[in-house]
Amino acid sequence: MADPTRSAEPLEDATVARVHESFARQGAMATLGAELTDVAAGRVVIALPIEPRVSQQDGFVHAGVLVAALDSACGYAALTLMPGDTEVLTVELKVNLLAPAAGRMLVAEGEVVRAGRTLTVCRGDGYAEQGSDRVHVATMLATIVRRRTA
Amino acid sequence: MADPTRSAEPLEDATVARVHESFARQGAMATLGAELTDVAAGRVVIALPIEPRVSQQDGFVHAGVLVAALDSACGYAALTLMPGDTEVLTVELKVNLLAPAAGRMLVAEGEVVRAGRTLTVCRGDGYAEQGSDRVHVATMLATIVRRRTA
Amino acid sequence: MADPTRSAEPLEDATVARVHESFARQGAMATLGAELTDVAAGRVVIALPIEPRVSQQDGFVHAGVLVAALDSACGYAALTLMPGDTEVLTVELKVNLLAPAAGRMLVAEGEVVRAGRTLTVCRGDGYAEQGSDRVHVATMLATIVRRRTA
Amino acid sequence: MADPTRSAEPLEDATVARVHESFARQGAMATLGAELTDVAAGRVVIALPIEPRVSQQDGFVHAGVLVAALDSACGYAALTLMPGDTEVLTVELKVNLLAPAAGRMLVAEGEVVRAGRTLTVCRGDGYAEQGSDRVHVATMLATIVRRRTA
Repeated sequence: MADPTRSAEPLEDATVARVHESFARQGAMATLGAELTDVAAGRVVIALPIEPRVSQQDGFVHAGVLVAALDSACGYAALTLMPGDTEVLTVELKVNLLAPAAGRMLVAEGEVVRAGRTLTVCRGDGYAEQGSDRVHVATMLATIVRRRTA
Repeated sequence: MADPTRSAEPLEDATVARVHESFARQGAMATLGAELTDVAAGRVVIALPIEPRVSQQDGFVHAGVLVAALDSACGYAALTLMPGDTEVLTVELKVNLLAPAAGRMLVAEGEVVRAGRTLTVCRGDGYAEQGSDRVHVATMLATIVRRRTA
Repeated sequence: MADPTRSAEPLEDATVARVHESFARQGAMATLGAELTDVAAGRVVIALPIEPRVSQQDGFVHAGVLVAALDSACGYAALTLMPGDTEVLTVELKVNLLAPAAGRMLVAEGEVVRAGRTLTVCRGDGYAEQGSDRVHVATMLATIVRRRTA
Repeated sequence: MADPTRSAEPLEDATVARVHESFARQGAMATLGAELTDVAAGRVVIALPIEPRVSQQDGFVHAGVLVAALDSACGYAALTLMPGDTEVLTVELKVNLLAPAAGRMLVAEGEVVRAGRTLTVCRGDGYAEQGSDRVHVATMLATIVRRRTA
């Protein structure tokens, strides 16, 4: 399981900048209103306001939107542990939806479970927050592959 | 495996209307520019133009957007085989991303693999199309649960 | 995520007996040499000696054997939180294999992430142990459905 | 989706021999009574008699045993499309259990959905057979990684 102490490790500024720069190029994140809220070593958090534009038919967050936030959080968590000349692609992901995502804000946390040379396994957990309430709405496992940038 | 002949079965107008009506309430589908293009018994197709607003950092369709379209296609495929007083929720899903999704249009096909009383298993397949080119970009397995509407 | 304190909750003797009795009827567990080593509320542990009879071609534990132990651990973890007239079936499972499973003993831990009325989501983690070494070799997510016994 | 015509392609004898030789070293396959029944290009079939020694508590085939057969079928399907100096490891797999596996024989079919340089995605389908009855009991997606042998 991911070492929770690892998320406290400071990251080099260049790595944090690399994650922010890549995130800014993800049109889907802007379209969904998502923002990067934390970038640490092996752990990234993304937040997204729960609004009608990201809903399914009953007003809860659409599963695909949840997956979008969790997938980006997992991919960037993997990227924080890689050298500068690499980028990441998601090979596959699986998510269990634990409860309807309602409230004010969706928080998607991605963290590295195991970082390999080629493949990194991440876990993602999604929470719906409203005031001090925090409901665990989804849990994901994802496999990320490292690619050298051209 | 899904019986391919089943997709040719005609559906009652009320069922087709029910799917369209529910789809229209999915804010996320409108936000992503997705449209229902086929509703048959046990099989639903959704199309989505590939544009910068649904991209990841390299301009390909974001995995979460792909999942959003495939998940809705699978859920509605399940719904077509259920009685009128029910709705569907996704329990879990898993997707393998087979190739970068580039081109003009993303087509997400969902079909029922097995319809049970409570749980329905669906397969989803995503294709990126450009002219006569059609690339298989993703394959999904999803578990859908039936809920009685209030 | 599963509340780790929950695993400390004492279980009624009847529940523990129910799990042991069901486990004893699993022919596959005997065939693989697996034993129940812990049964707590929402958490079950199974151990299995790493021997040639459970191997894949390189002498490591076969992925299917790992899944067998993790699946039983998850199913019984779910069962501990249910009333006496029920049994469990696995709906689906997904596992990431993190490292080759070598050593003396495979330990498979299953714990409940979320217990619903019909569906329970569990996480399973597999460890290969040798002396004081403990390697995280697999992580699973599984969906378990509750059935009333006849 | 896998090209069904591909399974008709003849394989070189050396490749078929390589699969059989590797299978013979899988202790778990012998323990479970599994046999290789077909090896074609991108498609492998394994059969396993349904007996009490592979059962879960109700006498059906244990999910882990099903996964063991499907995982080996998928891995070897991937191997048939690779050069001679490679071997395969399963990165991850996900299976939906569609119906209880009862009858005389379990048949596990693995086929390649997409073969990449490093990663191959396979689909596995399990069937329980008794006389002329054939029930679809499981469907799997698996990611296989290619490793160069030492």
